[in-house]
Amino acid sequence: MKASQFFISTLKEAPADAEVVSHKLMMRAGMIKRLGAGIYNYMPMGLRVIRKVEAIIREEMNRAGAVELLMPVVQPAELWQETGRFDKMGPELLRVKDRHDRDFIIQPTSEEVITDIARQELRSYKQLPKNFYHIQTKFRDERRPRFGIMRGREFTMKDAYSFDRDVASAGRSYENMYGAYCKIFDRLGLQYRAVAADTGAIGGDRSHEFQVIADTGEDAIVYCPSSDFAANIELAEAVALLDARGTAAQALVKTPTPGKATCEDVAALLGLPLTQTVKSLVLATDELDEQGVIVKSTVWLLLVRGDHELNEVKAGKVEGLKGGFRFASVAEIDDHFGCKPGYLGPIGLKKPVKIVADRTVAQMSDFVCGANEADFHYTGANWARDLPEPDLVADIRNVVVGDPSPDGKGVLAIQRGIEVGHVFYLGTKYSAAMNANFLDENGKPQPMEMGCYGIGVTRILGAAIEQNHDARGIIWPDAIAPFTVVLCPIGMDRSEEVKLAAERLHDELQALGVDVLLDDRGERPGAMFADWELVGVPHRVVLSDRGLKEGQVEYQGRRDAEATKLALAEVLAHLKGKLKL
Amino acid sequence: MKASQFFISTLKEAPADAEVVSHKLMMRAGMIKRLGAGIYNYMPMGLRVIRKVEAIIREEMNRAGAVELLMPVVQPAELWQETGRFDKMGPELLRVKDRHDRDFIIQPTSEEVITDIARQELRSYKQLPKNFYHIQTKFRDERRPRFGIMRGREFTMKDAYSFDRDVASAGRSYENMYGAYCKIFDRLGLQYRAVAADTGAIGGDRSHEFQVIADTGEDAIVYCPSSDFAANIELAEAVALLDARGTAAQALVKTPTPGKATCEDVAALLGLPLTQTVKSLVLATDELDEQGVIVKSTVWLLLVRGDHELNEVKAGKVEGLKGGFRFASVAEIDDHFGCKPGYLGPIGLKKPVKIVADRTVAQMSDFVCGANEADFHYTGANWARDLPEPDLVADIRNVVVGDPSPDGKGVLAIQRGIEVGHVFYLGTKYSAAMNANFLDENGKPQPMEMGCYGIGVTRILGAAIEQNHDARGIIWPDAIAPFTVVLCPIGMDRSEEVKLAAERLHDELQALGVDVLLDDRGERPGAMFADWELVGVPHRVVLSDRGLKEGQVEYQGRRDAEATKLALAEVLAHLKGKLKL
Repeated sequence: MKASQFFISTLKEAPADAEVVSHKLMMRAGMIKRLGAGIYNYMPMGLRVIRKVEAIIREEMNRAGAVELLMPVVQPAELWQETGRFDKMGPELLRVKDRHDRDFIIQPTSEEVITDIARQELRSYKQLPKNFYHIQTKFRDERRPRFGIMRGREFTMKDAYSFDRDVASAGRSYENMYGAYCKIFDRLGLQYRAVAADTGAIGGDRSHEFQVIADTGEDAIVYCPSSDFAANIELAEAVALLDARGTAAQALVKTPTPGKATCEDVAALLGLPLTQTVKSLVLATDELDEQGVIVKSTVWLLLVRGDHELNEVKAGKVEGLKGGFRFASVAEIDDHFGCKPGYLGPIGLKKPVKIVADRTVAQMSDFVCGANEADFHYTGANWARDLPEPDLVADIRNVVVGDPSPDGKGVLAIQRGIEVGHVFYLGTKYSAAMNANFLDENGKPQPMEMGCYGIGVTRILGAAIEQNHDARGIIWPDAIAPFTVVLCPIGMDRSEEVKLAAERLHDELQALGVDVLLDDRGERPGAMFADWELVGVPHRVVLSDRGLKEGQVEYQGRRDAEATKLALAEVLAHLKGKLKL
Repeated sequence: MKASQFFISTLKEAPADAEVVSHKLMMRAGMIKRLGAGIYNYMPMGLRVIRKVEAIIREEMNRAGAVELLMPVVQPAELWQETGRFDKMGPELLRVKDRHDRDFIIQPTSEEVITDIARQELRSYKQLPKNFYHIQTKFRDERRPRFGIMRGREFTMKDAYSFDRDVASAGRSYENMYGAYCKIFDRLGLQYRAVAADTGAIGGDRSHEFQVIADTGEDAIVYCPSSDFAANIELAEAVALLDARGTAAQALVKTPTPGKATCEDVAALLGLPLTQTVKSLVLATDELDEQGVIVKSTVWLLLVRGDHELNEVKAGKVEGLKGGFRFASVAEIDDHFGCKPGYLGPIGLKKPVKIVADRTVAQMSDFVCGANEADFHYTGANWARDLPEPDLVADIRNVVVGDPSPDGKGVLAIQRGIEVGHVFYLGTKYSAAMNANFLDENGKPQPMEMGCYGIGVTRILGAAIEQNHDARGIIWPDAIAPFTVVLCPIGMDRSEEVKLAAERLHDELQALGVDVLLDDRGERPGAMFADWELVGVPHRVVLSDRGLKEGQVEYQGRRDAEATKLALAEVLAHLKGKLKL
């Protein structure tokens, strides 16, 4: 293609509202254009990347035996009422009424519609397993859309749904999709990690997030460099850091710690390691009557080591907290501890509270904790001797770098990631709610076992840029670059030789199926190079009058520090090598 | 592809709510599945056709120099308020409020958004002309969605928008798109006609509808078989059928016509040709004050020959009626004519009315018209002698078959069509309303001249079927068939020879780039053939044990009355010939 037949619009400066580098670079490279909060036009340059991402996803989904269809953007509310999501979902579900005042939603995903299709179309075990997918516009009315198209409101997602006759078969469908996702992200040319993720209420171990590795990612990915363990921070198991509880060596002493309300301050004041201190977090659970009125509240004290952080998702799996919890009010704290936050601890309570100790805390001895008296802490505290054993011992903390890997094969590392895909075993959650049954060999109706598999198509663009950029702009992987090769002729309007050589190379590359752009805009070399470095085209060939007189052109890969001189006769072979053609 | 890797779901009977043949066949062939009124899932078989239609459109749009981008489905109301369409459009515009109570619309088209892009991106005459398009989901909240996906609520449309520096350049952009549309519909393999259409308030002659010819079409297409004249019924000019007014030969006679309130009945009663009668239609126009209160109404009498029909769009172009009109009330008619409808005419009015005569009526002599007295008509009525010349003479009727072509090159014919595309010169309607200016050579801001160009992607499926079907099902043109060739092996599970031959032919065709399906479902021959005739695959090859023993297979084109025996060794060459490979 020639630049004059395309639309190129680059900016020197990113708009002020662009926070993250991918957003800035996409705006500057003219890939997207803001239409409203979290709503973007995909400009020609950006759309080319989207189409390439979609094509790779489509090929691998088809290869994995999934069948493409297309479900509507505007969906009747009835189906969403069947599963209860119409009422249960918050304002992120965009609701709309038609001219007859009937309720519709703008789809954020399509579990309901695909389950409706499945219950009509998949009647017999002979038709299973089946996997349907579509690549379609989604809308989520985010409270605070941000990071450009990484957390927009309108976006493109590939969502697939598998239907199986039993759990074992659903497991194979899950593994099949897991494998397809690995192929997809391999082909996209991104560094990623598939990490185990929480399955929430469904249970089981079949949930993986596909995370693109990027320092700027919102998610923490836990992995073990010496094994294949990888999980997100919610799921990564934190083992006890002490094998057994030490014997009590110190006496319990109430120590003045005036104004020292954090473990860090207390440890510094007392000259003790932070690992000797225990942090107190006070939660509460409520029992409601049928009218939803609180009839009873229970106060909980969760204890983690001073250098650790509570993980709320893990806390939510503790028996008694599964139904939901909240942080306790100051009044509740005062009522049970007789003290303000900052000096709370498990010893000397005014009223009983449920005590949950993290695994490591449960093994500690001679520890420091709040004395339930302002400006005082205890030192030398010991379970059983100074306070009863905890009511519960559980994994309630985030892992930290250097923790033993739960598979026993080394220590954990943490990196940042951007979630771009998720495979998830749904079980019969939707099929049971919507009566999506098939008849088994005995003619008996059984609910279908389902899985869902999403890829954020447009988010991949942002994640790819967060991972691959430098000070000059984007560095696209070959497979998804808007153009694979750009030809930059210098003085094409003055030199017939440059023009002919550029056009011939353009035609030769195009004949090979290479996505090549000939920049015939007549820009000066500096501006031209800056544009293509910003846009991130991975391979550049510069043709100039002077070079051609010596039979030479210049090649530069987007990551190369400088250009390489090549004989004009060799450039095609050189590019074929680079592009593995 | 093998059928076992795909999803095939055919029905013996169409659902009761399917009215037209394309809707019935698409439902039966498992191409679409109803989700709600006017909202359909595109099932795998239907989606394949959509993708092929889209690919052809995309290729020809790109070839014509248009640049693809993608504008959002959910669009902020602000832009639609700038052009006034947010308020002016009726409930067919689906409006929605987000979580912050801000107004949005679900796009029915994208003039506002593209003009917003253009006013930001196209600043200089050097950047013009430019043509942007997208293929995107649209929503129109039709009052009565019907005909399946031909008049659905959610549908896919390709809409393109051109931006030019002046009217002459806009004309070239228009012609360019007209040419691209001809190539697109040629390639789709459809019989179609590009017909001149009304430009409404914009004026000018640059509006053409692309109509797929089908007896079941909603639109009447007027054309001249001996010239290139073609227009829709609103625009087709009706010439005067009499070259000059004849001399009055009869006396004006008030004749009793008891109970004969139509021209047909009067002509039959009097034994006169219908072409001797004149039909009266009474309209009214209102003048409003600034508060919108009617301050004055004018009554109009429109006269067409007894065998002709009023065309309201043409009437709306008559001076004085351009601002809008309504049919007169019975009270207004009584007030001005002193008579009830059925016996109205231009002679002997109680109060003055504006009289508009169709061109043919203005040339008539000795005609029959109502006498403004119940149960009476005049015969032998003559302009100038019995009543004043009409206030206005205009083309206000529909043409009929056999009318002279307005280009003087023959007589008109009429056929039915389904509108699938529209090219339209917009002028500065949107650019002026939205301040979309460019700087000309003198640095002076000028509004951009625009054109818009739509193709109903999903509607094309319906139109193609209305045009191409028989009692057994759909007959897809090769270019957009869900599969081009289907291989039907008989007894594939019993015969290794059949299996191997079918798989080899499948692989050979696939290697040639042919979209081939191997039906490995193990269905009986009858059911298998019925399925593929219903689905409409254009080429079928049957492989059987018996045939292969003689080295033969059977080929049948979807329009062929019977199968042809071919040597297995020749079938590939035969198909290559059929598919022009």
